[in-house]
Amino acid sequence: MSSQPPLIYLDYAAATPLLPEAYKAMVPWLTTEYANPSAIHSGGVRARAAIEAARQKIARVLAVRTSEVMFTSGGTESNNLAIKGYLQSLHASGRAYTTMEVLTTATEHPSVTETLAEVSTWGVRVVTVPVDGDGIIPLAAFKDELTDQTVLCVLAYVNSEVGTIQPIRSIRRVLDERYRGVTRPMLLVDGAQAPLWLPCQLTTLGADAVTFDVGKFCGPKGVGVLVARSPMVIRPVIGGGGQEQGIRPGTENVAGIVGAGVAFEWAQTGYVERADIVRAVRDEGLVYCLGQLPDCVVNGAADERRVANNLNISLPSVDTEYAVVVLDAHGIAASTKSACAGAGGGRSTVVFAMTGDHARSAATLRLTLGPDVTRDDLVRTTEVLRRHCMQMAVLRQDNY
Amino acid sequence: MSSQPPLIYLDYAAATPLLPEAYKAMVPWLTTEYANPSAIHSGGVRARAAIEAARQKIARVLAVRTSEVMFTSGGTESNNLAIKGYLQSLHASGRAYTTMEVLTTATEHPSVTETLAEVSTWGVRVVTVPVDGDGIIPLAAFKDELTDQTVLCVLAYVNSEVGTIQPIRSIRRVLDERYRGVTRPMLLVDGAQAPLWLPCQLTTLGADAVTFDVGKFCGPKGVGVLVARSPMVIRPVIGGGGQEQGIRPGTENVAGIVGAGVAFEWAQTGYVERADIVRAVRDEGLVYCLGQLPDCVVNGAADERRVANNLNISLPSVDTEYAVVVLDAHGIAASTKSACAGAGGGRSTVVFAMTGDHARSAATLRLTLGPDVTRDDLVRTTEVLRRHCMQMAVLRQDNY
Repeated sequence: MSSQPPLIYLDYAAATPLLPEAYKAMVPWLTTEYANPSAIHSGGVRARAAIEAARQKIARVLAVRTSEVMFTSGGTESNNLAIKGYLQSLHASGRAYTTMEVLTTATEHPSVTETLAEVSTWGVRVVTVPVDGDGIIPLAAFKDELTDQTVLCVLAYVNSEVGTIQPIRSIRRVLDERYRGVTRPMLLVDGAQAPLWLPCQLTTLGADAVTFDVGKFCGPKGVGVLVARSPMVIRPVIGGGGQEQGIRPGTENVAGIVGAGVAFEWAQTGYVERADIVRAVRDEGLVYCLGQLPDCVVNGAADERRVANNLNISLPSVDTEYAVVVLDAHGIAASTKSACAGAGGGRSTVVFAMTGDHARSAATLRLTLGPDVTRDDLVRTTEVLRRHCMQMAVLRQDNY
Repeated sequence: MSSQPPLIYLDYAAATPLLPEAYKAMVPWLTTEYANPSAIHSGGVRARAAIEAARQKIARVLAVRTSEVMFTSGGTESNNLAIKGYLQSLHASGRAYTTMEVLTTATEHPSVTETLAEVSTWGVRVVTVPVDGDGIIPLAAFKDELTDQTVLCVLAYVNSEVGTIQPIRSIRRVLDERYRGVTRPMLLVDGAQAPLWLPCQLTTLGADAVTFDVGKFCGPKGVGVLVARSPMVIRPVIGGGGQEQGIRPGTENVAGIVGAGVAFEWAQTGYVERADIVRAVRDEGLVYCLGQLPDCVVNGAADERRVANNLNISLPSVDTEYAVVVLDAHGIAASTKSACAGAGGGRSTVVFAMTGDHARSAATLRLTLGPDVTRDDLVRTTEVLRRHCMQMAVLRQDNY
């Protein structure tokens, strides 16, 4: 019998294991407790109470009202709902789409860029602020693009590919200064990559709304959260019953929501220690990696402006998609870029927006660590990559 | 120790227990198998294969192509996606919304009526065909409302409140005759209440698209299905990654989709026997009920045009919401109307559309049976209702 070495999972930004405590909390809602939470009999009342308890957990962790926490089917839907729902609420209050501007960056997740592409067909002007070489929004450039028609700014707290942490608090300060005495644009933050590693309270961030994907912080897949504070009014983008205050109708995914509550509380309770441990492993691994792979360049920020678990490198002489397959054959799960940016080939739009470098953005490798990854795991990963790079170099020599 | 009698669950139209086999199939995807299905490493490939296997199960049962089966977050989203996505695809191909008409009935689920209310704000003309006293669309009235601008007909296969089965096949024949030689309107069927009791193959029905809610046929909550056949082109209503052929982006709910496949296959494999058994129990229960509750009137069709598991009565002298609470105290789960029509009070719009009778539509009681319900369960339910009606009558005498 072959003994398989344990999987080295370095794709935490794409998907996370379900927290055993979250799973355990979900089990009753997948077995004995199956009533519709809108039903008025006891089973329905218990299901409703379970949803509201999960909402309360998240509201408490984020220091917001329970009425400000909405459940959706995932991060993608949360971003769609926040963007379209807010612009539609402005429209419903009498403002023409052609008098609205939205500010964003060139490094957002497809669920933001595609949604903004759609709202631009409504007549909304979407302005993309370039980022610097580390993927950070330059505050001056951001400030320059703000106009009296700017109604919304959308940006990721943590970039899903290179892990860059945007200075959300500073951006909010820029907004407060620019719009002193007048209505300022709403600040919508895509928080998908943050809960395991960074503080997410809206007041700490200075955000008016934050979106989350529960499957990215050890909750179940298929559940998202949208937290939106007054005065950011969201209109539903899906029509139906009155669930989630009418903003997100449809029978609730009770088990998923229960799991979301447990996972969110766990994620945000222990993020400081978790980040410290993972950062240390990541940094040691990076030093080793740079020593072993001379061609390797790091994408993204090198300091505290990078999320603890992200390591993103380019290996310009290597087909990194092939490298991911080779790593996989050695029991190592990695990725080239965001899963939602497509499993297929093509360069990283994020790294290209940061560097303008075609070769570098076509050869990215994203290693995103979980709390259990060790330095030895990264040494082993580097070793596989080193041997692969050498083989590729030999092949190139043979061919030319 | 108190020994609780087993629950009599008569709210199958609102929510169903998760099939143990479906749950069992889901467990790996909630525990050891957590990769993102868009990832190219082995874990991602396995998750992708699990999704595609579920899609194949459903495609095979419905005799459609796998590419015609899309997963969503529920029946509500499926109805939204089908209606808006189809009208938007026509719009994108150059047709103005003001030249489009949609035909529907006054007895649809809120996820249809609310969506149609929204598309009417785009300029689409929404025409509501009245139903007869049994809730059936009269074919002649339906035919009369068809125009050269009709692009879509939306109606439920089975009404969620009174269980009326629409003559979908006949409606399709009317369409084929009316539009001989020219493009006919698409026929979209809300199939939410059907899979456990009725055949759902699209060719059998004559439907171009059918929507399902997995939580209504013993699959997990939070998953929906939209089956749309050529030439019905659907545009995405949520922007994001390329998942579900780009029509429904967002990281897939792998566990939920796996459960959906198992539940769908099970539901459609055994529906004839299941319906026969439940119909016999329902009919015996109804006879008993009518004998014991002299004021009771049955809402909906009395023959094969009613789904096997539905029993909907009005008790005009009783506050049926209170009656549901009383039943609940006796371990019997029932409802007054559709859960999505709101847990609160108010009359049944469905029964009002059928009867025009205020008192009757304000006093509905919906009993929807599962396969395990027995005649004795219905006898016990009737007994609780009879005593409650008597007590209410005594109270009324005391008060007046």
